[in-house]
Amino acid sequence: MSDTNLQLRSTITENNQLQLALVEGKIPQPAENEVVVRIEAAPINPSDLAVLLGPADISTIRQVGSSDQPVLAADVPENLMASVAARVGKAIPLGNEGAGTVVAAGTSDQAQALMGKTVGVFGGAAFQQYAKFNVAQCLELAPGTSAVEGASSTVNPMTALAMTETMVMEGHSALIHTAAASNLGQMLNRICLADGIDLVNIVRKPEQETLLKELGAKYVVDSSSPSFRADLTQAIAETGATLTFDATGGGRLASDVMGCMEAAASRNMTQHSVYGSDVHKQLYIYGFLDQNLTALNTRSFGFTWGMGGFLLTPFLQKAGRERVVAMRTRIANEINTTFASHYCDEITLHGALQLDTLSRYAKQSTGEKFLVRPNEGIN
Amino acid sequence: MSDTNLQLRSTITENNQLQLALVEGKIPQPAENEVVVRIEAAPINPSDLAVLLGPADISTIRQVGSSDQPVLAADVPENLMASVAARVGKAIPLGNEGAGTVVAAGTSDQAQALMGKTVGVFGGAAFQQYAKFNVAQCLELAPGTSAVEGASSTVNPMTALAMTETMVMEGHSALIHTAAASNLGQMLNRICLADGIDLVNIVRKPEQETLLKELGAKYVVDSSSPSFRADLTQAIAETGATLTFDATGGGRLASDVMGCMEAAASRNMTQHSVYGSDVHKQLYIYGFLDQNLTALNTRSFGFTWGMGGFLLTPFLQKAGRERVVAMRTRIANEINTTFASHYCDEITLHGALQLDTLSRYAKQSTGEKFLVRPNEGIN
Repeated sequence: MSDTNLQLRSTITENNQLQLALVEGKIPQPAENEVVVRIEAAPINPSDLAVLLGPADISTIRQVGSSDQPVLAADVPENLMASVAARVGKAIPLGNEGAGTVVAAGTSDQAQALMGKTVGVFGGAAFQQYAKFNVAQCLELAPGTSAVEGASSTVNPMTALAMTETMVMEGHSALIHTAAASNLGQMLNRICLADGIDLVNIVRKPEQETLLKELGAKYVVDSSSPSFRADLTQAIAETGATLTFDATGGGRLASDVMGCMEAAASRNMTQHSVYGSDVHKQLYIYGFLDQNLTALNTRSFGFTWGMGGFLLTPFLQKAGRERVVAMRTRIANEINTTFASHYCDEITLHGALQLDTLSRYAKQSTGEKFLVRPNEGIN
Repeated sequence: MSDTNLQLRSTITENNQLQLALVEGKIPQPAENEVVVRIEAAPINPSDLAVLLGPADISTIRQVGSSDQPVLAADVPENLMASVAARVGKAIPLGNEGAGTVVAAGTSDQAQALMGKTVGVFGGAAFQQYAKFNVAQCLELAPGTSAVEGASSTVNPMTALAMTETMVMEGHSALIHTAAASNLGQMLNRICLADGIDLVNIVRKPEQETLLKELGAKYVVDSSSPSFRADLTQAIAETGATLTFDATGGGRLASDVMGCMEAAASRNMTQHSVYGSDVHKQLYIYGFLDQNLTALNTRSFGFTWGMGGFLLTPFLQKAGRERVVAMRTRIANEINTTFASHYCDEITLHGALQLDTLSRYAKQSTGEKFLVRPNEGIN
């Protein structure tokens, strides 16, 4: 292999410009407990897009480099510059996860054991040809698993599993999920079917309801239906679900779900209370598909409720090593079934800097995902 | 004493009417571990008003009884009847707390020890002449404390103390409080000054800022000021407050406070993250002074945050017996200083059923409280 290492980087400049460019680095050297992975496939997750495009106005994007050295640039509105002050002037590496082949390993037994293996990786910078990881960041895939199959082995699989694990850890017995037709939602549906967990799927369109029912989902409610709140309350009453994961993070949906959880709980109350039911109802926001403010009718929740943000890394710290290892082992074993991902298109590092490609992935919708192939199309 | 026992009761009828009336009962007999208290003073707290008036339309209130047997009635809007289904047809006793003299006691040593004492009581029905309580519901007041002085010995004092106790239990080091000029807010200010806890007081008017500063408050921010968010962020940065108790429960205030807690936390970040700071920011809603929907810009909170309802009883269960006993002892010792309450008017049980009195206490604002004197004005 040559020793150049092409990487995608995103920079916000002092004069309010976001710039995307390929930079050439050196192939890293592994320390004792590290490996170097030739990245063969890496998905563009929403969390990657948030760094890649930042708060830039995508309608202003344009080519400012040369055909040899393409650079895309877009304007960052002045009033949003404060929110990214800490990254100004820094060329941020990108790509939360991916998969590839271990091509160099440190001296430790654990590192040496991964030499030549196909691994899923998380927490580094996967939108580059060669990346260095601690062995703890690598998930050894089962023999015969390709890098494309293993590319999304952490973000969606661990998040979906974290939802059912949180349910157990916090003493709930069934789940509610919004944007349930998404890639992640379908994965959660497969986990819940396999594990015998009742899952109330909330979708936004009748065709998504049909899709999930075809995939075996028992409880699917459509928020565009006039009977949505009655349907949801009934599904919650049947399942006893008191924990919701919400990907929309805006509008009235979170409030509706909390109100319906309380309405279902109050069906079992024998005595009126101005404080509402004493059933704890919890909702975690983990995404922002709806750009509106979150409007809550907190009076309809009773007093026994909680809401919060949900993020994978703090969950993993709370879950503890043993549980995390069990989750990762399951993912490696079921990467082509329960945890399978699908991609709408594949792009090379050079392709990532083409205007039409960028505008397509900036608009990627739920359930659609691009796959970056950092070692394809390289001369 | 005669053996009749006049009580105030609130009933919602099947034909959508709220009725307030005095009913005559018998003076109760104490069981082994119970005492009977002649109630001499009982405050009308917001939680009492919620039961007393329910969801009735107060503008429709009218006298439907006789001068001997006054009954006030008001219409309950049809669409709100479902929310009170569990209380329809039941004459609900009223009055969460109060104080008076123990006039009968059960056979247990604990009950006998209270005989003749002035006690604060909680969790029964204090808007009556004589009420029965388990000894655990009684707080023996220091000798010389009057029933009027001890009438509000639980709801506000325990709630204010629960805020600083929650701060400790959940690992925060300073507090933010909204509607901070209220009776409860002034009490919390006194506790924090005594205990050396930094408290950021949020008020809605310049004159409230002046009032709290005169009472020794160090951090007071006025939400009506154009520099509110900058002032609040600065006060949070200085105090390190990451826990808020919000009495307003509506509008934009909760969102502003959460956003300012995140803005203060991100001042200490050395590296940009699309997930925001990893400082946990918590807000509890314990009241509903603002009738608007709660509008949250959750994107401005980062991912590490929580919100929830806050209610005294579940807190007490979580806090455990030892902590609760310490809190109660402190209240008994400081009832005329730290935990002193003030009342805007005193009313008798008969007076409570007068139209003009009722419309005044239906409108009682923060910091104003009526005191019911169940054994005054009785023939």
